[in-house]
Amino acid sequence: MKVTQTKLGILGGGQLGRMFIQEAINYNISIHILDPDADAPCKNICDKFEIGSLSDYQTVYDFGKNLDLITIEIEKVNIEALEDLEKEGVTVYPQPRIIRLIQDKGLQKQFFKENEIPTSPFQLFNTKQQLIDANINLPFIQKLRKDGYDGKGVKKINNTKDLENAFEQPSLIENLIDFEKEIAVIVARNEDGEIKTFPMVEMDFNPDANLVEFLISPSTYPFEIQQRAEDIAKNIASSLSFIGILAVEMFLTKDHQILVNELAPRPHNSGHQTIEGNYTSQFEQHLRAIFNLPLGDTRSITNAVMVNLLGEKGYEGLAEYEGLEEILKKDGVYIHLYGKKYTKPFRKMGHITIVDENRNLAIEKARFIKKTIKVIA
Amino acid sequence: MKVTQTKLGILGGGQLGRMFIQEAINYNISIHILDPDADAPCKNICDKFEIGSLSDYQTVYDFGKNLDLITIEIEKVNIEALEDLEKEGVTVYPQPRIIRLIQDKGLQKQFFKENEIPTSPFQLFNTKQQLIDANINLPFIQKLRKDGYDGKGVKKINNTKDLENAFEQPSLIENLIDFEKEIAVIVARNEDGEIKTFPMVEMDFNPDANLVEFLISPSTYPFEIQQRAEDIAKNIASSLSFIGILAVEMFLTKDHQILVNELAPRPHNSGHQTIEGNYTSQFEQHLRAIFNLPLGDTRSITNAVMVNLLGEKGYEGLAEYEGLEEILKKDGVYIHLYGKKYTKPFRKMGHITIVDENRNLAIEKARFIKKTIKVIA
Repeated sequence: MKVTQTKLGILGGGQLGRMFIQEAINYNISIHILDPDADAPCKNICDKFEIGSLSDYQTVYDFGKNLDLITIEIEKVNIEALEDLEKEGVTVYPQPRIIRLIQDKGLQKQFFKENEIPTSPFQLFNTKQQLIDANINLPFIQKLRKDGYDGKGVKKINNTKDLENAFEQPSLIENLIDFEKEIAVIVARNEDGEIKTFPMVEMDFNPDANLVEFLISPSTYPFEIQQRAEDIAKNIASSLSFIGILAVEMFLTKDHQILVNELAPRPHNSGHQTIEGNYTSQFEQHLRAIFNLPLGDTRSITNAVMVNLLGEKGYEGLAEYEGLEEILKKDGVYIHLYGKKYTKPFRKMGHITIVDENRNLAIEKARFIKKTIKVIA
Repeated sequence: MKVTQTKLGILGGGQLGRMFIQEAINYNISIHILDPDADAPCKNICDKFEIGSLSDYQTVYDFGKNLDLITIEIEKVNIEALEDLEKEGVTVYPQPRIIRLIQDKGLQKQFFKENEIPTSPFQLFNTKQQLIDANINLPFIQKLRKDGYDGKGVKKINNTKDLENAFEQPSLIENLIDFEKEIAVIVARNEDGEIKTFPMVEMDFNPDANLVEFLISPSTYPFEIQQRAEDIAKNIASSLSFIGILAVEMFLTKDHQILVNELAPRPHNSGHQTIEGNYTSQFEQHLRAIFNLPLGDTRSITNAVMVNLLGEKGYEGLAEYEGLEEILKKDGVYIHLYGKKYTKPFRKMGHITIVDENRNLAIEKARFIKKTIKVIA
């Protein structure tokens, strides 16, 4: 597929699509976006913007039928439509069968088990009653098998009261993992089977919002651990014959076992720092992978820390940004606003990447930035 | 002016506007473009795209009257309209009086002279007849005072036959300069008067097309020379109270004098490598300058070589790109296609930046790329 002559459709027009487009502009790619939100971040920067549901068969099918290649920036999409489009000759990367697998955290877990990918023990339940009847040792984590995202769809069940308020829908039960660090590796694979990983990164979560708010690249864990994490990611991508970019979120336990937590078959929050911090960004790498171009150099240029810019608690409405000028006084600070008109508490409104040859200085700047910048209304 | 709440107009929707928009997306800036070409590179990536003449008073005035801030990506624009808009409270950066000065190579030269900016001796003529009557020693260079760009509007006058074919319009005459290297420094200045230069770069020209086709950053000339070139650029920006980004093209003579050749009051071909090669790109720096934000760190990250991708001789029509896949096999290669539908000989269709910690390797890769990639039809 000639990159400059392809009509590329993206399901979803949010920030991931937006940052992808920023790179795709370099390749003259004609981009068509489908998103339910008339004000989606990609609205004004694509060749064609269509408003419509990503989960409706007909909408997705009609959107895709005259395109050459389709990709996603969110995994909650209508798979049947993608499978039918694929049968009719439209290329869909990542492949619908993989999106289907990843949409369901239960199927993901079964896949890990079958392929000897290290992951924590789990049990699957179809209803809350089944879960109650199973009488599992407390505490544990309940995750919805489907449609959870950004910390939604996850509950910690500490006691019988929590158990009464557990999710009704099909869910996945895991023990609490006593981890030392959340880590992630992004891996890309193209049609030719070329595979490359980005260096392992470390994440700090905001316990209130359950969102990554602080990401450090590259990791300073021993080479052996990084190698192991990257090998796990490569192994998953090859086992799936995955095409595109795949984010593999993992736990590093206190005894330095690595357990795969979950997958995202698209550019991911844990790879935003690659835009400035690595020779190739995750967005360009995704582009190269789906067009079967040679994959780019994933090495880190220098230390990069990424801070998510979340809507401030207590503010809802037309977004305003406080402190932008202040943080731009520091060298190596890169602002990425997502073009979202409205803010609400914890909404991902942007991110900021800090690069510095001195890792501690980068972290210090990131702390200053977190304190200084605010999205209010 | 709050960056996220500003309606920014750009006169011109070509590749410079396009690369500017790629950065401006990070700041949620609402961008309006005016360009005479319905297929201009910015067409599909801005909030509002208007087709119209940049040199027509009414068109430029009407375009600008509801905007907060106007900038340019080409200097051939209607100044009277910009001056009137300025009087009515629209901010125009760079300032119209400076664009007016720079539009006229004769006024530029006079400005250099008055401000003791080193430049080669020159004479101004209003007509060809005046030039012939002056009986100047041959050979010399004749440049149109206005509207020359990309090597157009420049003639080498070697003999009396050439003299007969000299330009009729007002022109500037300079001796041939026996230079060792063409160099450039890009300088930015904001409303607060903060000034920063990018490191000096070296250029190689294509003698056929008279276009930069090979640019190396940073220069390896002695620090003293680089310092002198950067000081000249800063001096020009302060003398003009310039706001925005200003490219200063210079000659380094064989006896290591620096002579200013000409100015461009906008992002410039000699700064494209800053996108990957420097901590801040020239486009982001321009944005920071016109919004009076703190200027970014201009340091080089590593060696960067930029190759212009020109339409191949002998081909005219719908553009096709040969060799893209081949060049992407090399690490550190960044493709920038400008989204131009049609190619013709020497048309600027894109550029490629190569970064490498090893300068010689970067140059070697650039040579390979020049041989390998072709824009045909």
